[in-house]
Amino acid sequence: MFTQVKRLILGQPLLSHHAEDEKIPKWKALSTLSSDAVSSVAYASDAILSVLRDFTRSGVFIGAAAAAYVWSIPVALMICTLLVILVASYRQTISAYPNGGGAYIVAKENLGVNAGLVAGAALLIDYVLTVSVSVSSGLENIGSAFPFIMAHKQSLGAVIILIIALLNLRGVRDSATVFAFPTYAFIFSIFTLIGLGLWRAVTGQVQTAPLPVPSSFAAVPLILVLRAFAEGCTALTGVEAISNGVQIFRPPADRNAKITMVWMGVILGALFLGITALAHLYAQVPVGDETLISLLGRTVFGGGTILYYFTQISTALILFLAANTSYADFPRLASLLANDRFLPRQLASMGDRLVFSNGILGLSAASMGLIVIFGGETMRLLPLYAIGVFISFTLSQAGMVVHHLREKEPNWLRSLLLNALGALTTFVVLLDIGSTKLLQGAWMVLLCLPIMVLFFRKIHKHYMAVGRELTLVGKKPPAHFKKIKHTVVIPISGIHQGVLEALQYALSISEDVRAVYVEIDPAKTTAMKEEWVRWVPGVPFVVLKSPYRSVIEPLIKYIDDVEECSHDDVVTVVVPEFVTARWWHNVLHNQTALFIRAALALRRRRVVTSVRYHITGR
Amino acid sequence: MFTQVKRLILGQPLLSHHAEDEKIPKWKALSTLSSDAVSSVAYASDAILSVLRDFTRSGVFIGAAAAAYVWSIPVALMICTLLVILVASYRQTISAYPNGGGAYIVAKENLGVNAGLVAGAALLIDYVLTVSVSVSSGLENIGSAFPFIMAHKQSLGAVIILIIALLNLRGVRDSATVFAFPTYAFIFSIFTLIGLGLWRAVTGQVQTAPLPVPSSFAAVPLILVLRAFAEGCTALTGVEAISNGVQIFRPPADRNAKITMVWMGVILGALFLGITALAHLYAQVPVGDETLISLLGRTVFGGGTILYYFTQISTALILFLAANTSYADFPRLASLLANDRFLPRQLASMGDRLVFSNGILGLSAASMGLIVIFGGETMRLLPLYAIGVFISFTLSQAGMVVHHLREKEPNWLRSLLLNALGALTTFVVLLDIGSTKLLQGAWMVLLCLPIMVLFFRKIHKHYMAVGRELTLVGKKPPAHFKKIKHTVVIPISGIHQGVLEALQYALSISEDVRAVYVEIDPAKTTAMKEEWVRWVPGVPFVVLKSPYRSVIEPLIKYIDDVEECSHDDVVTVVVPEFVTARWWHNVLHNQTALFIRAALALRRRRVVTSVRYHITGR
Repeated sequence: MFTQVKRLILGQPLLSHHAEDEKIPKWKALSTLSSDAVSSVAYASDAILSVLRDFTRSGVFIGAAAAAYVWSIPVALMICTLLVILVASYRQTISAYPNGGGAYIVAKENLGVNAGLVAGAALLIDYVLTVSVSVSSGLENIGSAFPFIMAHKQSLGAVIILIIALLNLRGVRDSATVFAFPTYAFIFSIFTLIGLGLWRAVTGQVQTAPLPVPSSFAAVPLILVLRAFAEGCTALTGVEAISNGVQIFRPPADRNAKITMVWMGVILGALFLGITALAHLYAQVPVGDETLISLLGRTVFGGGTILYYFTQISTALILFLAANTSYADFPRLASLLANDRFLPRQLASMGDRLVFSNGILGLSAASMGLIVIFGGETMRLLPLYAIGVFISFTLSQAGMVVHHLREKEPNWLRSLLLNALGALTTFVVLLDIGSTKLLQGAWMVLLCLPIMVLFFRKIHKHYMAVGRELTLVGKKPPAHFKKIKHTVVIPISGIHQGVLEALQYALSISEDVRAVYVEIDPAKTTAMKEEWVRWVPGVPFVVLKSPYRSVIEPLIKYIDDVEECSHDDVVTVVVPEFVTARWWHNVLHNQTALFIRAALALRRRRVVTSVRYHITGR
Repeated sequence: MFTQVKRLILGQPLLSHHAEDEKIPKWKALSTLSSDAVSSVAYASDAILSVLRDFTRSGVFIGAAAAAYVWSIPVALMICTLLVILVASYRQTISAYPNGGGAYIVAKENLGVNAGLVAGAALLIDYVLTVSVSVSSGLENIGSAFPFIMAHKQSLGAVIILIIALLNLRGVRDSATVFAFPTYAFIFSIFTLIGLGLWRAVTGQVQTAPLPVPSSFAAVPLILVLRAFAEGCTALTGVEAISNGVQIFRPPADRNAKITMVWMGVILGALFLGITALAHLYAQVPVGDETLISLLGRTVFGGGTILYYFTQISTALILFLAANTSYADFPRLASLLANDRFLPRQLASMGDRLVFSNGILGLSAASMGLIVIFGGETMRLLPLYAIGVFISFTLSQAGMVVHHLREKEPNWLRSLLLNALGALTTFVVLLDIGSTKLLQGAWMVLLCLPIMVLFFRKIHKHYMAVGRELTLVGKKPPAHFKKIKHTVVIPISGIHQGVLEALQYALSISEDVRAVYVEIDPAKTTAMKEEWVRWVPGVPFVVLKSPYRSVIEPLIKYIDDVEECSHDDVVTVVVPEFVTARWWHNVLHNQTALFIRAALALRRRRVVTSVRYHITGR
């Protein structure tokens, strides 16, 4: 029954050879691999302006208050510079790791296992946050157009994550053409917004009231600029995706990936800068729930226009698509870690739909949890975000530096310099993010990281120790297996067909069989014993007193005693169990068998045999 | 660890011979056995007045409106008459069943199993309702004195049920003298209330404004009087308790029980009539949450007086004590039904504190559920109440009639007439309750009853069928047990120490051992096979293809095939399992073993042997 329901929802199992990758053209790869990066413009500008707004409102620096917004453009420009450095730097990774060089692999191979584990932990955290942030922001963008949605952000967020999870448990193909739509729709609508906005402002069709330009940038404290910059860096999350996915490009894969990387950088930079500039020009600052894109859309397109709704919906769609990319990345990274024995084995096994089901379930649970805890509010989730990304950026670029020093491939010095620049800048940004967002929530991530690494290490140590205990390396095959002497203990509560069957089995594997009866009601013991002697006179009948009416405790104690007296033997406990015709009939039987098995579960070197007796009960 | 926590909360296990009953004097038995009945005056008068009030408010019969309350006294008198009949009738039961004659036993022995089951089901439902109603009413009585409690009725109700349940899991002795206190405190305070109230009214110390007396009773519609009567009959719940508990009295037990029965009847009748009369005299009608006892206490004693608080608290205490009596009755009845194989066996086994733990847990869950569903409001719970009690009254008295006809003990005709009168009146009242409370909630009880009886019958049928399948009656002991031919299947995923141990065990019980390997990754199969042949050349190595990557399905299919080919053999599946040093290490292992065992759990005639291999993982 369970299987049928599962099949209905998740589809028929797939054959293993379907796992092979399909190669896709650049335009499709761009939409698939850049949705995470490009969609972040939907919240990054909001985040910058929110920091400046909170400062403006706080009124601490009265003179500078209105001036704060002026920094939004320079901050956006700094972030675009960083974007250029990252694109250049990751182009080197594409050349060096044409099979996909995730931060975990690059850091592990070049900087050592610990660096790899830190990068891996940071990435796992950020994949979870990508889902939470993207889904929250997506709902806020639809909610800006349809306000009744805002009140249900948490529950709707959970529903959307559930839908994405189910699609991924079925196995979605990233290469599906339908996934190209949201990305291009989003790029189209935002460029239209920016173009029309600028055109109307320049031609004077719209009366704009730009945010005030102060006489001096210096009036705003540096710490504020650094925080705004740190928040804006969320725009850069996901830029590494193309370098991780080189293998899905058509040949020449590395060249195509590098070209796509540049496209992605240009589009992301232009959108981000355009939105920030437009906000400045039209003096729009997000207040309350409404997103900046919605505010700009209302101003430029007008609130009820088709273009406005199209923009909001395509924004939400690209954000959900970005969340979907984590559903490929998280389970894949978890399976890499599991294959290296840093996570439980079952994360490495593919389900019958060729997806890593356990990873998908784990990601869904964690991201739903975050949405519920943070009320589905993007601006409350953002301080946790980006720090993990920049840790993996830094480690990945630093790893590339070591790679170049060791491999000395053609043009290695140029690549080394680019990666070194990347590592250095991302490290400086990491320090900025870590310090300015620390109290807002980054501490949670910084607390989680070492715990996760410790966890990875513990798991690894355990698997390694088990491997050493189990290994046959250096040992010789036995000439023959030593014959074991068996002692069989068979707990009984009465004499019936089922017990006789179990007894027959017990006698067929050993001469030394002992029936054990736990006496709850002394009045019944004598009759029981007589009955036993009549039926199976050859098998000793052991009566265990149980003054406290527990069946299990005297039994376990007896088995312990038997084992102690016979060192070389194996003690086999034969438990007669009923197999009922209907599963719910089990409620009426088998409790004792269940408890006996549970109590013996953690005992060493003890064999428990369940002999099933079928009862129809009709 | 679990055991230690359990011991701390529930105490050390008790020896079986402690189960013997202690005999107690009449004054103690009265307080123990009559708390359920006597405490019902705390809500029965409220219920009558509420019906009349709702009618008065509805204004349907404008002329008769204010007149409705006049019926409260006649209705109370009718209920007292019924009480006299019940006491007389149950005194006959005490003579006939000196070991305690519950409705289930009396009905089953005299009217047949079905009548017994109906009575049993009705009683189980009413025990649950006794807990819910008593706890709710108790909280409303404390809440009348301390209003902040009213807002938390549901959660406090659950807490109180939890406390009572824990006390009963520890094993409370009904005979404990401390339990005499609430009953006598309640009787004392209510008699004081009635006495002082009447005195002040008669002597004119207090200006009373009695409810209006109409010129004619006929102005009030009959249906209303019938409903008020039905609601008031909740006062009679619990009057059968003494006849159920004859065995706890000191000898001569039956005589003492009969005397106590009369005392109980007199006290209950006086309290009930007194409260109803007082309400009439002082024109007090419960509105909102405050209870009638609290309203009267405020009027007679004054709101802030010690007597007022004492009355409210002792009322709450006797109600909680009444709830506690269900914790003896429900598990006892459930164990009787379980012993007769009408309920799952585990309800019949005493826990290590000499209490029927499963019954206690079931009762707690059900009564908490009702409190949560009905918001802890006594007046919403009452329509469900009493109907079960009157079903069991009727069946019990009718059973007594048959008993007298059959046994013809001395004075049987007089007893027969008394019981017949009891059966007849309770049946008429049952019809009244069933019809007037039907839509208010009695339908739920009437729906539950046949379902429960069906359930009892199904369980019984199953146990009987199993008994027939298992019985050895009429069979001869075997001269010797036939030696079984074994085929052993041992699923493996690699070769290591644990597998070798399992293999050694397998080889010691059979010559025909087959290692089965499920191929997920074909690349690894050859190496695996070579390794196997090197280590255990004598044991066949079976490779099962698994195109859908499931380990379980091909394995089960193979075992089915083996079984089909070898009809007489027993197929034993030997599953190598790890015993880890720490329980949480199990998360990292054993999943496959677990799934194999689960998949084989419902297979007939198949033996599953777990061979444990101990790993430290350090």
